[in-house]
Amino acid sequence: MSAALEPLELLENLRRGDPIDPTSVDAFVRSWSAGEIGDPQMAAWCMGVCIRGLDMACTQALTRAMIASGDRLELAKFGVTGDKHSTGGVGDATTLIVAPLAASLGVKIAKMSGRGLGHTGGTIDKLESIPGFTTNLDLAAFVRQLRDVGLVVVGANERLVPADKRLYALRDQTGTVQSPPLIASSIMSKKIAGGAQAIVLDVKVGDGAFFPTVEAAREAAKIMVALGEPWGRTVRYIISQMDQPLGRMVGNALEIRGAAEVLNGGGAPDLRDLALHAAGSLAEAAGVVGRGEGLVAATEHLGDGRAKAMAERWVAAQGGNPAVWSDDAILPQAPETIDVLAPSDGYVAHLAAREVGEAARWLGAGRLHPDQVIDPGVGVELHVKIGDTVSQGEPMATLHVRDEAIAERAVHMIADAYVISERVVEPPPLIIETSED
Amino acid sequence: MSAALEPLELLENLRRGDPIDPTSVDAFVRSWSAGEIGDPQMAAWCMGVCIRGLDMACTQALTRAMIASGDRLELAKFGVTGDKHSTGGVGDATTLIVAPLAASLGVKIAKMSGRGLGHTGGTIDKLESIPGFTTNLDLAAFVRQLRDVGLVVVGANERLVPADKRLYALRDQTGTVQSPPLIASSIMSKKIAGGAQAIVLDVKVGDGAFFPTVEAAREAAKIMVALGEPWGRTVRYIISQMDQPLGRMVGNALEIRGAAEVLNGGGAPDLRDLALHAAGSLAEAAGVVGRGEGLVAATEHLGDGRAKAMAERWVAAQGGNPAVWSDDAILPQAPETIDVLAPSDGYVAHLAAREVGEAARWLGAGRLHPDQVIDPGVGVELHVKIGDTVSQGEPMATLHVRDEAIAERAVHMIADAYVISERVVEPPPLIIETSED
Repeated sequence: MSAALEPLELLENLRRGDPIDPTSVDAFVRSWSAGEIGDPQMAAWCMGVCIRGLDMACTQALTRAMIASGDRLELAKFGVTGDKHSTGGVGDATTLIVAPLAASLGVKIAKMSGRGLGHTGGTIDKLESIPGFTTNLDLAAFVRQLRDVGLVVVGANERLVPADKRLYALRDQTGTVQSPPLIASSIMSKKIAGGAQAIVLDVKVGDGAFFPTVEAAREAAKIMVALGEPWGRTVRYIISQMDQPLGRMVGNALEIRGAAEVLNGGGAPDLRDLALHAAGSLAEAAGVVGRGEGLVAATEHLGDGRAKAMAERWVAAQGGNPAVWSDDAILPQAPETIDVLAPSDGYVAHLAAREVGEAARWLGAGRLHPDQVIDPGVGVELHVKIGDTVSQGEPMATLHVRDEAIAERAVHMIADAYVISERVVEPPPLIIETSED
Repeated sequence: MSAALEPLELLENLRRGDPIDPTSVDAFVRSWSAGEIGDPQMAAWCMGVCIRGLDMACTQALTRAMIASGDRLELAKFGVTGDKHSTGGVGDATTLIVAPLAASLGVKIAKMSGRGLGHTGGTIDKLESIPGFTTNLDLAAFVRQLRDVGLVVVGANERLVPADKRLYALRDQTGTVQSPPLIASSIMSKKIAGGAQAIVLDVKVGDGAFFPTVEAAREAAKIMVALGEPWGRTVRYIISQMDQPLGRMVGNALEIRGAAEVLNGGGAPDLRDLALHAAGSLAEAAGVVGRGEGLVAATEHLGDGRAKAMAERWVAAQGGNPAVWSDDAILPQAPETIDVLAPSDGYVAHLAAREVGEAARWLGAGRLHPDQVIDPGVGVELHVKIGDTVSQGEPMATLHVRDEAIAERAVHMIADAYVISERVVEPPPLIIETSED
């Protein structure tokens, strides 16, 4: 390895477009993480990387240095551990299905998940809408449940990649979030430190998603696959459409309901389809089923109730009422519902994911600031999606509302999110491509 | 004017390469200057500007916002004020000649100058090597001397463009110094705030200079001319060669000696030539002589002693001994001299300005840190320059040394700075182009 460039030389090379090397990136990031160089230097570096790009060797070095900022879990002794990560979408309850489904197939699921600042809460917030469910386990309880149940989901561990939170906050303030190598490194540093051996990434594209284009999503996905390699992690990806919300429920307890419908053999076809693909892919990546056999096995385990049985064991292990998957009266519910009616006869041509998400957040389902309290019962239930027919005056959606005084704005937002056409509309393909394509 | 973008939107546009507008740049820079947004955002912005560039309207807005961070002097009532600025070179004593020469032609010279972190001190340090000379005048004394003598040079006023010092320090730490629009804006904001109506810029190119190429120097020079326009400032530039040092003296008191030689009608031809062009150009820009008459008038005033007489009035007004221009024994002198001898017969083919400057700094003539004390007497006297003939064993240069223990390294540096060739070498052209070309 050559000697590392001084931080200033590294920044000057980046500015000029001259090559930068992994040794220098590693030294730069570790120095910043240790507080030896400041946030302005890191901010300038991030802007330079956003514009100039970062090659794979340097992205590996960044990821290695970020992982080195904290602890790293070793879970291999518990079997082949797996994790599924989504870049975030509206109505995305997939993890709630994939986790027990893949666990029922034999993948050990030890997942750490965030609360997030999205339109609804993160997976942790959704799970906490189940009465009694705790996501706050210490390491001993976490390991015990992984061993005994084979599935555990807890809140993000602050000791894993602590530098990532600081770096993300800095990028968020400096307009440097949108960079495939920086995004890929941020996600994979946490996955690698979290110990999962097999990882399936659901990379969302479209109106309600992190990535605006398939090209950007594919670039980030391929980087993430490559970042796993030197750590011996098998990484697969699914690029999925997020122009309209996934499933029919947007809200925390509502999404538990939506997942329960799928675990009971019904539910929204798109949510079910994506969960089956993700769980099958994860089972293949973990080696618990043969190559190409994952989707069939997942479909079988969902159909015969083994996935639901695992979901019940899981919820019970974490203190929740396992009947939640059979009886949605257990879940918190908003006191009022308001229907949004179709303005005309026709076909749903468009259903803007971002606007539906904003409406759910407006009703109290999501946060704008990290210390905001989420209302688990509120949200939006979608009765029709792109390609469906509607008749004038028929409910297109139902709002679940606590405070009627603010509901009117949400009604308008949902009405605006729908576009009704007189002509037949084909529903868009859900899965755009996968790492196996 | 359209509404300003939020700081984050501005940074995101810059990242993507989308247009940014002057109103937004103005708001961004004022917010940073007021402490409403932080150094990381500004660092990211500077890196973005270095890579993406900044159009003229936005560079104007940056300059306006920087000027607005402090006071602005109005000197028009004292006549047409002029200023000459150099981007900095090795042995650059031009200001010491141009200031009294242009003042003798009728240009009111009210100059604020820095100490700098160069190979030797700045103009202020050089002047302070004259016993008794003070550069620390209050505003009343500054204005009185401008009115009575027509020439005053003081240290930088901390109340003019205070944001520039902060911005420069940030750029210096983040590898974002080298950007023609940022450099041009930094220089011109201070010149405009300083009140000069006519400005001549000596933009140096080459080994010992700020700009590596003529193209970068020309780009910055043309931006500076344009930046003066909305403020009614007449700006001219000279792009001059700095591959070898200017003149024959490198050091603080030594450069006063070099300037005195020129004021007495002799001196190094290149230093004399550049001073005549700059003073003539400044006199034309200020309108005290007709267009195209500056060089002739300056040559006349240098030849008949009017420039030297003005230099004497000036030094006396600021407390120094005016005889300094006639008797160099008044100046501080280093206790020892050491000759550097020619290794062979031939012609000087190369004389690396940067290495000569580093040798002078090594001997104590310059600073590496702002709080270092300069030794006014030490430095390097060059007996031969590019194109001159040398005979083996003849002194090529003489070091003026206080501490013999460290001199040997400087001897090697100077010996290495010279390249002797057996073939005839043409001296390089000094003035590469001017705004009048």
